[in-house]
Amino acid sequence: MLDRQCMHVLQQQQQSQSQQKNQYGWHVEAPSSLMRTRNAIRNVLEALPSPQELASANGKSVIPLGQGDPAVFQYLKPPECAEQALIDVIRSKKYNGYSLSAGSEDCRRAVAEFHSKEFSTRLTVDDIIITVGCTQAIEFCIAALAAPGTNILLPRPGFPLYETMCSYMGVKARYYDLIPDRNWEIDLDMFEMLVDRNTVAMIICNPSNPCGAVYSYEHLSKVIAKAEHLKLPIIADEIYGHIAFKGQKFCPVASVAVDVPVLTVGGLSKRWMVPGWRLGWIIISDAYGIFAKGRVVEGLTKLAQLTVNTTSIVQAAAPAILKNTPDAFYENSNALLEEAAKLCCSRIQRIPGLDCPSKPQGSMFIMVKLNMTMFPELRDDIGFAYALATEESVIVLPGTAFGTPNWIRIIFAAQPSLLDQAWDRIESFCSRHRLK
Amino acid sequence: MLDRQCMHVLQQQQQSQSQQKNQYGWHVEAPSSLMRTRNAIRNVLEALPSPQELASANGKSVIPLGQGDPAVFQYLKPPECAEQALIDVIRSKKYNGYSLSAGSEDCRRAVAEFHSKEFSTRLTVDDIIITVGCTQAIEFCIAALAAPGTNILLPRPGFPLYETMCSYMGVKARYYDLIPDRNWEIDLDMFEMLVDRNTVAMIICNPSNPCGAVYSYEHLSKVIAKAEHLKLPIIADEIYGHIAFKGQKFCPVASVAVDVPVLTVGGLSKRWMVPGWRLGWIIISDAYGIFAKGRVVEGLTKLAQLTVNTTSIVQAAAPAILKNTPDAFYENSNALLEEAAKLCCSRIQRIPGLDCPSKPQGSMFIMVKLNMTMFPELRDDIGFAYALATEESVIVLPGTAFGTPNWIRIIFAAQPSLLDQAWDRIESFCSRHRLK
Ligand SMILES: Cc1ncc(COP(=O)(O)O)c(C=O)c1O
Ligand SMILES: Cc1ncc(COP(=O)(O)O)c(C=O)c1O
Repeated sequence: MLDRQCMHVLQQQQQSQSQQKNQYGWHVEAPSSLMRTRNAIRNVLEALPSPQELASANGKSVIPLGQGDPAVFQYLKPPECAEQALIDVIRSKKYNGYSLSAGSEDCRRAVAEFHSKEFSTRLTVDDIIITVGCTQAIEFCIAALAAPGTNILLPRPGFPLYETMCSYMGVKARYYDLIPDRNWEIDLDMFEMLVDRNTVAMIICNPSNPCGAVYSYEHLSKVIAKAEHLKLPIIADEIYGHIAFKGQKFCPVASVAVDVPVLTVGGLSKRWMVPGWRLGWIIISDAYGIFAKGRVVEGLTKLAQLTVNTTSIVQAAAPAILKNTPDAFYENSNALLEEAAKLCCSRIQRIPGLDCPSKPQGSMFIMVKLNMTMFPELRDDIGFAYALATEESVIVLPGTAFGTPNWIRIIFAAQPSLLDQAWDRIESFCSRHRLK
Repeated sequence: MLDRQCMHVLQQQQQSQSQQKNQYGWHVEAPSSLMRTRNAIRNVLEALPSPQELASANGKSVIPLGQGDPAVFQYLKPPECAEQALIDVIRSKKYNGYSLSAGSEDCRRAVAEFHSKEFSTRLTVDDIIITVGCTQAIEFCIAALAAPGTNILLPRPGFPLYETMCSYMGVKARYYDLIPDRNWEIDLDMFEMLVDRNTVAMIICNPSNPCGAVYSYEHLSKVIAKAEHLKLPIIADEIYGHIAFKGQKFCPVASVAVDVPVLTVGGLSKRWMVPGWRLGWIIISDAYGIFAKGRVVEGLTKLAQLTVNTTSIVQAAAPAILKNTPDAFYENSNALLEEAAKLCCSRIQRIPGLDCPSKPQGSMFIMVKLNMTMFPELRDDIGFAYALATEESVIVLPGTAFGTPNWIRIIFAAQPSLLDQAWDRIESFCSRHRLK
């Protein structure tokens, strides 16, 4: 037995010697620009224990309210026509080949027609670029507007991908605040201070991840007037478009911003509950030809030509999905989400130390304010989320990932029974850790 | 009537005035680095008439032997298990959500197991990254190895995407030649001259697009010895892996290159005939930890985390596809491709002015040499391809797109009857334009 161990140690030594010998002379190194790329949400997620660790740690089933994936709960389901459309396309055997680089004409036309109703202009195929999910749509919009060294205005709290993409491309992120107790409206007083001649665009996320806000026509008008005044093109992230609760009306930015050029990004991921299918789009609204003149449209086309577009079969299914999803489907999803949001709000009210100054008006997310003076041993939102995961197997995201410490974000696209179970655990967790 | 026209002109004037007025003060401009991006194949393709133009020009049906898409011919079909695997996955309703950023574990494990047999090491999940097609795999490999200002060695003639990606990232492309009458083997004498301290990798494409070559074990050994001597990591593009004709044996670079770190890129696109499905992969072979030490593996992981991975449903179907595709499927595809290649060679031999110094040994492509002194009025390969498209509606790619003027590339993944028809047209086209 000892021999065996000796052998093993010897082998390891030899191996590491041969490794060193063979590494000799090689100067391989990943680019520092890549290694600098900041991914706030990953950094935070990696600090949390993994689901496997959790399962073995406390025996409680994991309740994953962290990642923004409505599909994991199998509660809000895709429309039936979506599955059927995809199977029909596969059976036809006609869509196994490459699509055009900006997306298939039929898919682009379907997206144009779908949005023509609600945008102020009639959209055509040329106004649409299909992408690998809304993620790539965001990537392309930033890459087509922002050279390294320029800056972009991002919401805080905001979806961390914006910052990650900017840091990868060497573009600087500047933050405008959302006001927590005013339905997370945009703080317009900051803009003059933030904008300089290197500011190339602002991103608006509406309905909002992580805040759950749905901006009124009036508020959007003010934001757009400010953008017009400062000559700031807008990237409107409307991946949660129309996920608005009763009394709220979703207004696409491009329908309000007639004098400002807008790139709207969206896709099938959230409204149709198929984030894994990877179909996104960019809608170019450029009534005065400002994007065309600045060659931004050409730039977007170039970006699309750099790579191959998203799965042809999903592109081929999209027209049927957009056309055949009944209104009842959207209404039902929104009703279920609203019920879930209400459940969360009423549970939060009953837990001292937690607060939710503005109720969700749409999307799938709620921001919960932590009064950390009541939980001193947990230190901050990261400590809170970490302990909650370890002790209760409830995963939530610390606000730090979105730029706002001492909040947590919760996705509520889940069964009320599961949410209740999560809140039961959070409630007992809080009472355990609350200052007596 | 005149009034109407006047009105229209006036309206247009007003519109353009308001355009100018509204463009006033906007300074929107796409980044010059993006606009500089070179896409040789697009530039060449855009110079050719469009299929619509062709259809109306000469009444002949279009025969598209340009783009490298085997699916357009519906001749070489995907394995039956592929369609079924995908439908089963969709019906299970379990894969509509996001996958992990490096790809689903099951998919990565399946790719690892599939390649373990033929690579010299046993591969694990950690050695695999799933990508949006082989295109994104190439993008990630270049981005993880090459900082702006460094250079990479590319084959000439070669797949134009390599150069396009390099130019987008600010990486310089340097070219090593393939020798046309020596089965397109790599000219190793050039390497010392090409390599400097800023050279970070070489790309090998085997089986070759556009050349149809399949390198022998002996030749690969010499190439790899050179790479080892010069301390050059290898990116091995094996998207046509195993598409080798009788008498040829495909050897994965990583199975030969034990002393050189290799990133192998591949995917479902060509061997399984589903390029539109967008499933690719990177296989990391790093026996001596050179990539790990240089943080290249970490860089690849970072790149995967920047975006969301390819369609979850195709990822979920991949293990069944890799496992259940019968050997007879691969053999049958290769036999059909070999028959098609032979047909092309024998037709070329009968056409004065065309030549094919090395017969295809695999892949789906043949390079045809043009003796332009016999077709002076067509000027060069671009003139040849353009006139052939306009007059005969046969689309082929000019060699210029691959870095070698006065060749054309033809895809032969089509029905013999269609190929014969194409060659009939090419034959009469050549005799019409040949110097008498
Ligand atoms: C605000 C926001 N934008 C964009 C995305 C990315 O969407 P997709 O999954 O279509 O890439 C998400 C996904 O969570 C999101 O929350
Ligand atoms: C040599 C080579 N590499 C990579 C690719 C890209 O493959 P994919 O369609 O999987 O992105 C192609 C496609 O034509 C190719 O010919």
